[in-house]
Amino acid sequence: MAKSWATLGVDLHLDPTGTGTGTGTGTGTGTGTGTGVRRGLTDALRDAVRTGRLAPGTRLPSSRSLATDLGIARNTVADAYADLVAEGWLTARQGSGTRVAERAVVPPTDTTPPRRLRSRPTYDLVPGTPDLAAFPRTEWLKAARRALTAAPYQALGYGDPRGRVELRTALAAYLSRARGVGADPEHILISAGISNGLRLIGTALRARGSRAIAVESYGLTAHWQILAEAGLRTRPLPFDQLGTNPAQLTDEPAVLLTPAHQFPMGVPLHHDRRSAVVDWARRTGGLVLEDDYDGEFRYDRQPIGALQGLDPNHVVYLGTASKSLAPGLRLAWMVLPPSLMEEIAKAKGGIDTCGVLDQLTLAEFITSGAYDRHVRAARLRYRRRRDTLVEALAQHAPDVHATGIAAGFHAVLSLPPGTEQSVVQAAAWQGLALHTLSFYRHEHAVAAPLDALVVGYGTPPDHAWAGAVEALCRVLP
Amino acid sequence: MAKSWATLGVDLHLDPTGTGTGTGTGTGTGTGTGTGVRRGLTDALRDAVRTGRLAPGTRLPSSRSLATDLGIARNTVADAYADLVAEGWLTARQGSGTRVAERAVVPPTDTTPPRRLRSRPTYDLVPGTPDLAAFPRTEWLKAARRALTAAPYQALGYGDPRGRVELRTALAAYLSRARGVGADPEHILISAGISNGLRLIGTALRARGSRAIAVESYGLTAHWQILAEAGLRTRPLPFDQLGTNPAQLTDEPAVLLTPAHQFPMGVPLHHDRRSAVVDWARRTGGLVLEDDYDGEFRYDRQPIGALQGLDPNHVVYLGTASKSLAPGLRLAWMVLPPSLMEEIAKAKGGIDTCGVLDQLTLAEFITSGAYDRHVRAARLRYRRRRDTLVEALAQHAPDVHATGIAAGFHAVLSLPPGTEQSVVQAAAWQGLALHTLSFYRHEHAVAAPLDALVVGYGTPPDHAWAGAVEALCRVLP
Repeated sequence: MAKSWATLGVDLHLDPTGTGTGTGTGTGTGTGTGTGVRRGLTDALRDAVRTGRLAPGTRLPSSRSLATDLGIARNTVADAYADLVAEGWLTARQGSGTRVAERAVVPPTDTTPPRRLRSRPTYDLVPGTPDLAAFPRTEWLKAARRALTAAPYQALGYGDPRGRVELRTALAAYLSRARGVGADPEHILISAGISNGLRLIGTALRARGSRAIAVESYGLTAHWQILAEAGLRTRPLPFDQLGTNPAQLTDEPAVLLTPAHQFPMGVPLHHDRRSAVVDWARRTGGLVLEDDYDGEFRYDRQPIGALQGLDPNHVVYLGTASKSLAPGLRLAWMVLPPSLMEEIAKAKGGIDTCGVLDQLTLAEFITSGAYDRHVRAARLRYRRRRDTLVEALAQHAPDVHATGIAAGFHAVLSLPPGTEQSVVQAAAWQGLALHTLSFYRHEHAVAAPLDALVVGYGTPPDHAWAGAVEALCRVLP
Repeated sequence: MAKSWATLGVDLHLDPTGTGTGTGTGTGTGTGTGTGVRRGLTDALRDAVRTGRLAPGTRLPSSRSLATDLGIARNTVADAYADLVAEGWLTARQGSGTRVAERAVVPPTDTTPPRRLRSRPTYDLVPGTPDLAAFPRTEWLKAARRALTAAPYQALGYGDPRGRVELRTALAAYLSRARGVGADPEHILISAGISNGLRLIGTALRARGSRAIAVESYGLTAHWQILAEAGLRTRPLPFDQLGTNPAQLTDEPAVLLTPAHQFPMGVPLHHDRRSAVVDWARRTGGLVLEDDYDGEFRYDRQPIGALQGLDPNHVVYLGTASKSLAPGLRLAWMVLPPSLMEEIAKAKGGIDTCGVLDQLTLAEFITSGAYDRHVRAARLRYRRRRDTLVEALAQHAPDVHATGIAAGFHAVLSLPPGTEQSVVQAAAWQGLALHTLSFYRHEHAVAAPLDALVVGYGTPPDHAWAGAVEALCRVLP
């Protein structure tokens, strides 16, 4: 290799196929012509500048000289130089040749702290995630094939901020049938999870001038956080054995509730209070946000229909595929009072932000009946797990009382007063991930603190459930 | 049918299979027992209350009496009543029997104005959407099957706010190879389109206290709108034949640019200006937002590498599948300076908001080589369309000059001064949807207005392109 080339100190990878690599194993130098060679030379030079092997200000050999060294066409070298001048790596000035640009190129500085190495717990009993091992992959792929084959190509473009009409139509029928929701496709909006839906509502309420929202004394910190980020202070309502008490609702513009199955306490909202909250909304023009996260999963009686049916003009119904299928789909839905649709669509940015392929697939999954079959099978599975848990508790931990187990896939285990911390520590030693009830308690909650665990029975796969229950019983008093 | 039942005036649909309908054709009354009957009765009563057929305050027949009428078990009626009391449709008070709740149930009021009936244009030449008819459905479904089959079930849970690691890894390799981007998977974040990415960056900048951002004189109103909604005033930089001039960048915390192919003007940013903008960022600690929306599509020479490679600490690279595959995927990516990752992940809400299935599929699509093949085929197709357009203009509209056509899939057609409005009107009559250049001009743009059209050649399918060009030539002066 002649001097002018060697001086560059460049690893040149020529790729005659034209796909280029820029890194990796070289395929020799000095062979081939055209695009592949030019690409290889450009990549090699860029890398050399980027990594500092070619220092700022370095004068490059003339294109004629380098071409001779490499046994390639002079134009190829000239083109590569021109590309790199255009990109800003090199400079070309009349009379001073081609040089490495004077800016010192620095590698990216990583200022993120190293992630803590957390070992995965042996059993994950944190509530909120369904049994992902039971995700109906084959059925889903079949639905995806049917949906994508049938979709008009225009469906793949920029979409309606409300989401695909196929999904909204399927949901309107399903929600009316399964949850007593009064919905038509025009008033449904698809969001990337309920949290994303709450963000949109929070943004819309803030844009209306609202500054606060009533919430429950127990719930998801993440939801309160989202509302706070939207500019709304969250004020918790009192909670007792009849559920959240709406009597203290005053001039808040909205209240966020989980009427069918209070999260995490598990009680359904008492019918007097269902009526009272709707009456409040109608009287004051307030808005009820009904988070129906796991309304499909009720074991001992008919599911309680949605509050929304009582007054579609004052209740926003929020449902999700995160519990019935998988959170990773990031598909949830809101049934909105018609007057609110425009504001929410605006908060969503005026375009759809959820992938259409999954929307079309879920629509097909619902209308084909696969969704009903899946929910039915999941309901049976969770019910079995719940029964295993309840039996094990009765046998091994008679002092622990499980509540909120008529629905959903988590239970609240009331502990003898003063034992919570020792149980949590024992659980950590046993490789059990679980949350205490206080984790879900609003900092301004109007309810006496209780020693209790919130135990999810969705996450461990079926085969691990017996082991999880055994481990849990070992740490209970 | 006996009196007490007939008085209710209820369409009762009993569904012995237990799936229930609540609406639709009835399957007879008085037959079957158990869940299906109870469900049918509950649905029918709820519908009757909802629609007002059972007026508020109406006293219902006793459960014994109704059961006799219907020939079903008394408990079934009692259970249905209990369900509806729990849901708030009915009230049950000691001594006054079961009544329809006093709240008047009102149907949802639709206040949204009826959508204007817009006929679809014969030819859509609005830029920004690729050829959706050429979306590689079969290859995509194959990739989806491989990806979903291979994914660990944990991948379907709540995810990393940055997006799936499989996709970030595939993108890091692809962007380095194809666009000269210095990226590692740790510093890539997936967003629901570039607009969603800009929203996240805007939110993060606003949270840092920024109040303004520099933009180009020509660009997408939607992007400026997003930044404005995040609380950032947009200030346009001057534009001339070398592209956007960064000389007037001062104390803005950031600038949004389309360096590889100015949108919509089509020129690449001159190399002196590429250097200048990076120098500015380095000197002031500013941030360059590099919107590389169609960087893969360049026809007459090698693609211009990304600006980001010059300084990964000061440039945010934004790329997207919206132009290379389809906007409906809602998948875009940002390569972030490491120092910015935490703020952006926070703005995203701390969880992933993009569907994992499409992310896993795109990762598989890229690593299998299908993405490269698709982009190559699309590049050939758009190049042919562009050549057809340029030839037709030369022949039929010699006064119209096409620029910005070395890359992408739109062209700027400069019109003789004073002819823009008449061309736009003629286009409307011909069923041609197209935009004028002024549509993309910032209201405070520092550039002389030009009479010009921005013509996209992505949207019409292949078979319609010749007709679209013909129709276009008919309306040009």
